[in-house]
Amino acid sequence: MRLAELSRRSGVATATIKYYLREGLLPPGRQVNTTTAEYDETHLRRLRLVRAMIQVGRLPVATVREVLGHVDDDSLGRTIRLGAALWALPQVPEPDEDDEFVRAAHREAEELLDRLGWSNAKLLTSISPAYRSLVVAVAAFRRLGYDRDTELLASYAKLMHETAKLDLDFVETHPSEAEKVETAVLGAVLTEPMLGALRRLAQEEESARRYGFE
Amino acid sequence: MRLAELSRRSGVATATIKYYLREGLLPPGRQVNTTTAEYDETHLRRLRLVRAMIQVGRLPVATVREVLGHVDDDSLGRTIRLGAALWALPQVPEPDEDDEFVRAAHREAEELLDRLGWSNAKLLTSISPAYRSLVVAVAAFRRLGYDRDTELLASYAKLMHETAKLDLDFVETHPSEAEKVETAVLGAVLTEPMLGALRRLAQEEESARRYGFE
Repeated sequence: MRLAELSRRSGVATATIKYYLREGLLPPGRQVNTTTAEYDETHLRRLRLVRAMIQVGRLPVATVREVLGHVDDDSLGRTIRLGAALWALPQVPEPDEDDEFVRAAHREAEELLDRLGWSNAKLLTSISPAYRSLVVAVAAFRRLGYDRDTELLASYAKLMHETAKLDLDFVETHPSEAEKVETAVLGAVLTEPMLGALRRLAQEEESARRYGFE
Repeated sequence: MRLAELSRRSGVATATIKYYLREGLLPPGRQVNTTTAEYDETHLRRLRLVRAMIQVGRLPVATVREVLGHVDDDSLGRTIRLGAALWALPQVPEPDEDDEFVRAAHREAEELLDRLGWSNAKLLTSISPAYRSLVVAVAAFRRLGYDRDTELLASYAKLMHETAKLDLDFVETHPSEAEKVETAVLGAVLTEPMLGALRRLAQEEESARRYGFE
């Protein structure tokens, strides 16, 4: 398809598509003559991914470029390729390892992984931003004087494991390895707000069931 | 306790506590003479809540004041009091009702609530920010060409209902009505990042189980 059709089918203005092409977020089309290039379904898919990261995820162009570099790196196995792409997304700041609450949170997080039998996740604790995010979140609870027991944390973790299975099942419905990785990145950007909304709706439903509306 | 002890026990600087007192985020202590006031456990708890909203949730002071107004309004029943406090937290922008994807997302969200039997949540769709957030999130998926079926959305919603039950069970472990509402607000600010971290960790664990590390 020509640029005009790519614009029409994607809903992205041609000026914006040209900007993405200049910034290397979209691979060049196949040049058919000096003024015309042909684009295909892979361009449409890539455009969708770039828009999700920029418009919904509000990521800066440099971050989008880094994520796409990992998405396109087919020298990596799937777990590492997924991990590299997702880990390039913005993360929480590093926890302050001198803080007593952070140290306690590390112990609690490691105990949690043991209790859950998440031995693979445990191998990644020194490099995983997800593990660091958990430590920061648990430290915030402890700093405010909430000692939620590991039992409760484990119950939440098991439910999140069920959502992760749904996430990966959906990723697996896509045929090519490139589409799988793209879908995982889209899921990371789009699914979190959706789950947050569903959880708050569920709280309203459950609260009304337990206490009524008065 | 005196101001110095309130500062020590809460970990909040006395200058910051005085600022919160001036801004009305913390009720005044009991005046024991012209220069000294006495504070109690309710001040400590309120300080914890204010810090969570300002430091972790990064809410502006005006929003914190509005949320606290609902927390303290004991003329309301529990569901409405919880709702009013949580709805005062920052929400997604209003969906654009003229957008075709938003209209499709409304239909999909209503169909989802019917399928789940969330009749209470359905009564609140015209006023609930959680419902609007869901419509915005579903519209984002549709705009990018993802027609995830309602079946998958329902599976996620059921898991979020289980987390909402854990949330409310935890809220109910607190004795007084005021503490219950405070805990619900804290949970809204602190639990979301924790669930996000657990979900990403679970994805790493599940991905490694399915595909290994190579």
